[in-house]
Amino acid sequence: MTNNTIFAAEQALYLHLLQTSKHHPKAGEWLANLPSWLAAIKDKSRYAHAPFYASAVARLPVITPQSVDLADEFCVRLAWEQGDYRKSESLLKNLMPWRKGPFFIGDGADKQIHIDTEWRSDFKWQRVLPHIDLTGKRVLDVGGGSGYHGFRMLGAGAKSVVVIDPSCLFYHQFMAVKHFAGVDLPVHYIPVPLESLPAKSELFDTVFSMGVLYHRASPFEHLEQLKGQLRAGGTLVLETLVVDGDERTVLVPQDRYAQMNNVYFLPSVAALSLWLTKAGFRDVRCVDVDTTSTDEQRATQWMDYHSLADFLDKDNPALTVEGLPAPKRAVMVAVR
Amino acid sequence: MTNNTIFAAEQALYLHLLQTSKHHPKAGEWLANLPSWLAAIKDKSRYAHAPFYASAVARLPVITPQSVDLADEFCVRLAWEQGDYRKSESLLKNLMPWRKGPFFIGDGADKQIHIDTEWRSDFKWQRVLPHIDLTGKRVLDVGGGSGYHGFRMLGAGAKSVVVIDPSCLFYHQFMAVKHFAGVDLPVHYIPVPLESLPAKSELFDTVFSMGVLYHRASPFEHLEQLKGQLRAGGTLVLETLVVDGDERTVLVPQDRYAQMNNVYFLPSVAALSLWLTKAGFRDVRCVDVDTTSTDEQRATQWMDYHSLADFLDKDNPALTVEGLPAPKRAVMVAVR
Amino acid sequence: MTNNTIFAAEQALYLHLLQTSKHHPKAGEWLANLPSWLAAIKDKSRYAHAPFYASAVARLPVITPQSVDLADEFCVRLAWEQGDYRKSESLLKNLMPWRKGPFFIGDGADKQIHIDTEWRSDFKWQRVLPHIDLTGKRVLDVGGGSGYHGFRMLGAGAKSVVVIDPSCLFYHQFMAVKHFAGVDLPVHYIPVPLESLPAKSELFDTVFSMGVLYHRASPFEHLEQLKGQLRAGGTLVLETLVVDGDERTVLVPQDRYAQMNNVYFLPSVAALSLWLTKAGFRDVRCVDVDTTSTDEQRATQWMDYHSLADFLDKDNPALTVEGLPAPKRAVMVAVR
Amino acid sequence: MTNNTIFAAEQALYLHLLQTSKHHPKAGEWLANLPSWLAAIKDKSRYAHAPFYASAVARLPVITPQSVDLADEFCVRLAWEQGDYRKSESLLKNLMPWRKGPFFIGDGADKQIHIDTEWRSDFKWQRVLPHIDLTGKRVLDVGGGSGYHGFRMLGAGAKSVVVIDPSCLFYHQFMAVKHFAGVDLPVHYIPVPLESLPAKSELFDTVFSMGVLYHRASPFEHLEQLKGQLRAGGTLVLETLVVDGDERTVLVPQDRYAQMNNVYFLPSVAALSLWLTKAGFRDVRCVDVDTTSTDEQRATQWMDYHSLADFLDKDNPALTVEGLPAPKRAVMVAVR
Repeated sequence: MTNNTIFAAEQALYLHLLQTSKHHPKAGEWLANLPSWLAAIKDKSRYAHAPFYASAVARLPVITPQSVDLADEFCVRLAWEQGDYRKSESLLKNLMPWRKGPFFIGDGADKQIHIDTEWRSDFKWQRVLPHIDLTGKRVLDVGGGSGYHGFRMLGAGAKSVVVIDPSCLFYHQFMAVKHFAGVDLPVHYIPVPLESLPAKSELFDTVFSMGVLYHRASPFEHLEQLKGQLRAGGTLVLETLVVDGDERTVLVPQDRYAQMNNVYFLPSVAALSLWLTKAGFRDVRCVDVDTTSTDEQRATQWMDYHSLADFLDKDNPALTVEGLPAPKRAVMVAVR
Repeated sequence: MTNNTIFAAEQALYLHLLQTSKHHPKAGEWLANLPSWLAAIKDKSRYAHAPFYASAVARLPVITPQSVDLADEFCVRLAWEQGDYRKSESLLKNLMPWRKGPFFIGDGADKQIHIDTEWRSDFKWQRVLPHIDLTGKRVLDVGGGSGYHGFRMLGAGAKSVVVIDPSCLFYHQFMAVKHFAGVDLPVHYIPVPLESLPAKSELFDTVFSMGVLYHRASPFEHLEQLKGQLRAGGTLVLETLVVDGDERTVLVPQDRYAQMNNVYFLPSVAALSLWLTKAGFRDVRCVDVDTTSTDEQRATQWMDYHSLADFLDKDNPALTVEGLPAPKRAVMVAVR
Repeated sequence: MTNNTIFAAEQALYLHLLQTSKHHPKAGEWLANLPSWLAAIKDKSRYAHAPFYASAVARLPVITPQSVDLADEFCVRLAWEQGDYRKSESLLKNLMPWRKGPFFIGDGADKQIHIDTEWRSDFKWQRVLPHIDLTGKRVLDVGGGSGYHGFRMLGAGAKSVVVIDPSCLFYHQFMAVKHFAGVDLPVHYIPVPLESLPAKSELFDTVFSMGVLYHRASPFEHLEQLKGQLRAGGTLVLETLVVDGDERTVLVPQDRYAQMNNVYFLPSVAALSLWLTKAGFRDVRCVDVDTTSTDEQRATQWMDYHSLADFLDKDNPALTVEGLPAPKRAVMVAVR
Repeated sequence: MTNNTIFAAEQALYLHLLQTSKHHPKAGEWLANLPSWLAAIKDKSRYAHAPFYASAVARLPVITPQSVDLADEFCVRLAWEQGDYRKSESLLKNLMPWRKGPFFIGDGADKQIHIDTEWRSDFKWQRVLPHIDLTGKRVLDVGGGSGYHGFRMLGAGAKSVVVIDPSCLFYHQFMAVKHFAGVDLPVHYIPVPLESLPAKSELFDTVFSMGVLYHRASPFEHLEQLKGQLRAGGTLVLETLVVDGDERTVLVPQDRYAQMNNVYFLPSVAALSLWLTKAGFRDVRCVDVDTTSTDEQRATQWMDYHSLADFLDKDNPALTVEGLPAPKRAVMVAVR
């Protein structure tokens, strides 16, 4: 006996895009690609663990929630049996490592699952949310990981949310969480990178890109692609690693940065602002700059690998192990 | 105030294909093409009348039927006002000429629309149906015109029916008729020719091709394409024009045939049987041969152009105006 | 030490097409495909014997001919040493079986190679040539086998000849023979089937299709493709198997014909004439009908498999082993 | 009466690529694209002036040069009549503006054409050449303009040179100059941008990119594409605009730079060195840094628009009119 969650979520995504295509013909291109996008994520020659993850999701018990809170935190209240609780926790652990959260699922007492993720993504959300208004908005979250922020966007009043991220694991984490929160929630997940989306779709009121830019070899191409997903007048929320400095300061790590491969441009806030303007955005604002703390990013029982503390210089936490400035992140808001 | 029929029908088609794709990955290719197929039929640079036809469908009044009979005839019983009746009849006349029918829509008394089509397609259906069993079958009807036979296939017990035909007019006739019969009926319409379908889909239990083969320059290619849509063990129902003769008798009109352009191969029943066998079908049977009468094909108030009587030699109805044998049609049944 | 023949022939083909493209932009499409066409024929995953054949050609000795006769027969006169003679004969035998010929290469005395092919293709050429004029013509030979007729077309005055045939063996037979006759001769070989050529090229004055039509499931498609390679006013020479009968007589073998697979339509001459007219040709003439004799097609030392005698009914040579009429071939000439 | 120069140059390019493909199968991809590349540059819907330019080239008189010097300068010595001299000068002026040169064509006395280009490209060549060895090298020059440096590369001993640049005007300037210098010279021109070339061709010993990087939104993509054209161990010569500063200094003009649109990244030499290393190059050296003087770049009779003097701050030539640092260029040499 397995549940129908992934298929129902895919069906909901089809209907969402079909509905969208009534007024936005460009959504037809998304529809045309959807079969291959959804087939790819099931292809075990590409993702060896895909069947294992899918099976974990499919065996989660079907239980109608008593309440779902996405506004103040992600919390699904369930009255469930000990057996379902234990089984669910075990299945969710099959989807480790969990990076973005936290998620609370259970009875609020002794049969409560607390997915204690590496990131306290709620911290970031608290810093970002005061600066934007998502009421009634159609939102795209680029590189959205497990979809944590996607759920919180719904909680903040968004009309619909599309999360994209090419990770097979995160895709199934999202499905597992959506399974409990409600497969009918208007938050959808397409397992692709931004560059796979039809260019210049202009389908969204608000586009988020958090933690992506510094991984891109071409920041201007990334900004161009983000712009292409926004309607005219829509809002970009961009979060990325920055360094101190003036308009001409840009750090490019020659090799790794905080143990990460594929890190390219870390501009100053001033340089990043200039880039956004050059890319055609207006009303560019930096709404938050924050040095990441080891309270916000750390190893947990649900992510038991190395985390931030291991990536910093033991003797000088202002530096990474490579001797570069420790991670500092800025949130920019700009209008297309 | 317009109805939602075409969009609802498209949505039902998406969900049908999506459901099919759970067990038949090949349906994913159909899904991937659906946006462009459905966009093409709305493209007025290709089909100048498309907006006019679509508007006629959209303005049909929404009325819940009292009963829908598809088994004995196509008859939708409606209790409707004089205004709706008159308006509907007028809108349906905007979709003339009507070739395949007849359709009965109305109160069975003085507010009854009888779409008296050029063809009494019910005659053919009565000859064909005794020889096949559609109970629970997934059916494809190639070149299905207005969809008349598609509805009757449902009436004969089919689980689902997909009608294909590249005509923009027939597509909208189907939508108009489905509007009254019920947009949720599991009969769908894709406005494409057979060769546009993904090859070797093998999605159907029964495939119909009636009145198509003689228009194809390559009969073996047509048979191959039909075979590719059938699952192993599925049934082909093939109806086409034939001539008298033995295994080596094939009429190819040098120019027109009964005033039709693009007529190629008219084999004898013996030759056609051999071709089906050569193409890889087995259990080939001819279940009906019938010389088309002017009772079965004739001009009406709903198709007021020339019809069969005009295509036959005035002095010798056994010949066409070109001096070729008058139309005779055979129905073949074969197993893949 | 190997010769440069295949590369030189490819280079000559490039230059021929490039020269053609000056006045016929469509030749640019041929040029664009040439790299992949020529790469495919060297791909041993596709043609396991390709390196073996190519090596045989490459090891042929380089000897300037004393004379080359292509008009009366294919005869290359060489003054060569015993060693070269023996080595060449041995290498040419590596390219067995030889179907179309004969080729005479050598000193005309005791150091003479006579490639005694299965077919006396010169017989057919003697029947065809009186009916056409190739002087100054650009010619395409579809399904040209070893290129025998291609060389004879040059001998009959053609300005240039392109032979196409998808066979890897025949391609290398052509190269071996061209090696002796002269790599600069304006006869070229592209190892592809007709359907791979750019449609509607209209590059040729005369197009030959001999022994191809009956292997095509769609004769009208074949005629259409041939027409597309002809300039307006150009001449088609079509040779194919025929049967006795009237305009409505067409034999389709249910299974094999004279032991050949993939045999489809064998029309009567009357039916074939009608088809050519229907396909848009004019001035359709049948210039030759000939029942193939076992003198014209037979096993030899250069083709030591079964041949015609084995494919006929032992007791009644008017029938094939399948009981169908023995092979009879018609040559049709028509104008586009 | 027109000359055959452009066709002969195209033919030479075909043969060069075909010859290359004997040992480098990747050259087959270049060959496959060549027809469309060469057709595009003749397409007047894309390049309105293409026929005008081509006509100017085609009408140049055919005169065998007495000598051609490409080593010390570009100088073609011709003994020609007054009429040919005057006509040639007039036709070459039809190809204005001339950016890269200078070219000397004529009798060295009163019938001498001196194409006095905006850039004294020979200055740059004198600074670059001492640091590289082109003897026997296959060279690619990306963004090579009129091909001036391409000719000088031959003069420096290169075995063959391919110049690429998407400009229709520069393409025809190259053809005009090659017309006099010799259509058989192994310097070829393909009118495409770098990104149109088959990726990872690895066909060249030395690749030049001079004056291109700062126009690219994605410098790492450009470096990757350059690397892909080099064989392992091959040499990159990269010249681009730089600014003063350390490894983290990168100027991105918010709008124009020295009146140029589409200027993106101007790194310091230290930053550029780091980028080259990050992109996978080794032995990275800066061999020249030079502030462009108004002697090296200036308006002339052959380029009578604004030039460098107009792009600098009238009161402070160390600044551009936008107030940014005046153009300074570095030449980097690195090994793949």
